[in-house]
Amino acid sequence: MGLTFEVIKKDKNSNARVGVIHTAHGDIPTPIFMPVGTLGTVKTMSVEELKEMDAKIILGNTYHLYLKPGMDIMKKAGGLHNFMNWDRPILTDSGGFQVFSLAERRKINENGVEFRSHIDGSKHFFTPEKAISIQNDIHSDIMMSFDECVEAPADYDYVKQSMERTIRWAKRGLDYHKEHSHPDQSLFGIVQGGMYKDLREKSACQTTAMDFDGFSIGGLSVGETKEEMIDILNFTTPLLPENKPRYNMGVGTPDYLFESYQAGIDMADCVLPTRIARNGTALTSQGRLVVRNAVYKDDFSPIDHACDCYTCRNYSRAYLRHLINANEILGARLLTYHNLYFLLKLCENIRQSIMEDRFLEYKEEFYSKYGY
Amino acid sequence: MGLTFEVIKKDKNSNARVGVIHTAHGDIPTPIFMPVGTLGTVKTMSVEELKEMDAKIILGNTYHLYLKPGMDIMKKAGGLHNFMNWDRPILTDSGGFQVFSLAERRKINENGVEFRSHIDGSKHFFTPEKAISIQNDIHSDIMMSFDECVEAPADYDYVKQSMERTIRWAKRGLDYHKEHSHPDQSLFGIVQGGMYKDLREKSACQTTAMDFDGFSIGGLSVGETKEEMIDILNFTTPLLPENKPRYNMGVGTPDYLFESYQAGIDMADCVLPTRIARNGTALTSQGRLVVRNAVYKDDFSPIDHACDCYTCRNYSRAYLRHLINANEILGARLLTYHNLYFLLKLCENIRQSIMEDRFLEYKEEFYSKYGY
Repeated sequence: MGLTFEVIKKDKNSNARVGVIHTAHGDIPTPIFMPVGTLGTVKTMSVEELKEMDAKIILGNTYHLYLKPGMDIMKKAGGLHNFMNWDRPILTDSGGFQVFSLAERRKINENGVEFRSHIDGSKHFFTPEKAISIQNDIHSDIMMSFDECVEAPADYDYVKQSMERTIRWAKRGLDYHKEHSHPDQSLFGIVQGGMYKDLREKSACQTTAMDFDGFSIGGLSVGETKEEMIDILNFTTPLLPENKPRYNMGVGTPDYLFESYQAGIDMADCVLPTRIARNGTALTSQGRLVVRNAVYKDDFSPIDHACDCYTCRNYSRAYLRHLINANEILGARLLTYHNLYFLLKLCENIRQSIMEDRFLEYKEEFYSKYGY
Repeated sequence: MGLTFEVIKKDKNSNARVGVIHTAHGDIPTPIFMPVGTLGTVKTMSVEELKEMDAKIILGNTYHLYLKPGMDIMKKAGGLHNFMNWDRPILTDSGGFQVFSLAERRKINENGVEFRSHIDGSKHFFTPEKAISIQNDIHSDIMMSFDECVEAPADYDYVKQSMERTIRWAKRGLDYHKEHSHPDQSLFGIVQGGMYKDLREKSACQTTAMDFDGFSIGGLSVGETKEEMIDILNFTTPLLPENKPRYNMGVGTPDYLFESYQAGIDMADCVLPTRIARNGTALTSQGRLVVRNAVYKDDFSPIDHACDCYTCRNYSRAYLRHLINANEILGARLLTYHNLYFLLKLCENIRQSIMEDRFLEYKEEFYSKYGY
């Protein structure tokens, strides 16, 4: 019957809250960070490693999976869980973000979006119904409504028109979902409206009036300043119902996570920790560490003394620097493992701090060490 | 004290034999295949994965490690075992093969070889003593004498002159070893002589007259036909003492392994299984399988039905093809794991077949399925 959500504890001094999302593939404690597995793999990681670091849920990207391996193979595989050997929850985006940022020669009309594949230039057409149908074939646990994500800065009239269309698309997707999805699958509505509060309010009001299982905030961390992000986040989050999970899409630096959770967000995701890992940068309790730097060439201490992950328990900065400089895959693996572990552990610590009504103290303590 | 070697069983119908090499970092059952860890990592693999597949010994490349990370860092790390977190035996080549095949602007004289780094063009000079000194710093368990490996086909006079110099270099390296190596370290002499039996005989005779801990056959699988390889292999191997380990360098396809072990070889290594894995090719009991092929796009069976490795237990050809086609690192990882497991399991089966005096039957059975 889709997901159920419980709020377990509210922080006394902020809007932060601890909860749990129950799904057919297991429970997800919140606040949670969700590693991104764009093409049916969290880049460089095995599913055993993801379980070892206790990732509770991962993302798949609808646009990418639709193009490669394609829905014919996905259907024959019996969905993404089977295909990639992952038995915990999967969340999929709607494809909207990539269609509007990655695909070529887009033509938008009321019915949907025509676009060309960024891989081979082939022509495709996504509608709100098709976006759900693809996510049905992927068999994700938590699906997203098809939306348009507008980059900042953007013209008021365009954002308004786009947001209103996204609401009409949400309704169509929801209708399709109720008729066609597997009973285990849940669907979230997405609040848009750019940097305009009246549009955010209208979007939130009309989207939350529909019978979704949870609500996402889209269109943040897409070009605006941090102050604008925090402002819109704190304006929009309270407009979402308390009894359903709230997801801030595409957010994943430690400060954006803290700000999101402080505002009452339950879920977040970002490719940043995995992407910067492959490029040789680690997230640590003392801030970012660029492992490539020559200063680490004979530094035999771990990436982060405060971390007890597999990488930090077994490997030195000098070895990791050597691997990254030699373009060895193991370097990307070990840093990806560390960065994901770091954010998952951060979420665990945040949940604990909320349980003990000391979220803001923990945030301050973290920021002072991290150097924010 | 270096290594000790025991022959446990000789096959009744061939020169194949089962033995064990004892080293300070553990025992190595023979015949053995040794995965290659060029730059301080067996490409794409973690040390836990290598242990899980029960790799007993891995290789490091002296030339590569000397250039990157360099001996300053290697010494500060306390050797390669510490640096890469591997506590089982390590074998290093002498650097000779890469100096003669990869480095640029070589100038050979009696004292050694001047060359330019293939990475940055910097000038270096290797002598037989320096090759041992570098391997001392790497702290490998089994070191190789500095040699010149001549590609086939090659002129008799050049091969003769080169082989004679390699013998003089062997003596110099051995003298240096006796004075400077750690007592745990062992040194092998290398028999050269190209495709000329009289030169092979002279090289074997003079090299085995020296007090090495084992003997390698160099200069095979370097451009000659398979028939020539088998001919020289079967001519040379019996010239090596029975009571010391014998190593055929750079050999790693299943047929070359069978031929080597049949001739009485105990050790072999090759980058082939790991290199073809990264390119999407698997070794299977039914021959090579090119996972990229479109025919596997919706084939949900494992790479090899007869294999019980992690990859074959959990992943389909369709998923692996998808990963390889999408350039996902997990694809290279899963195929590398399978290919190494396949060869290690093959060696285990070969040892078992020798113990039961049915090596030749096992070879025939394997060849008939593999399609040789």
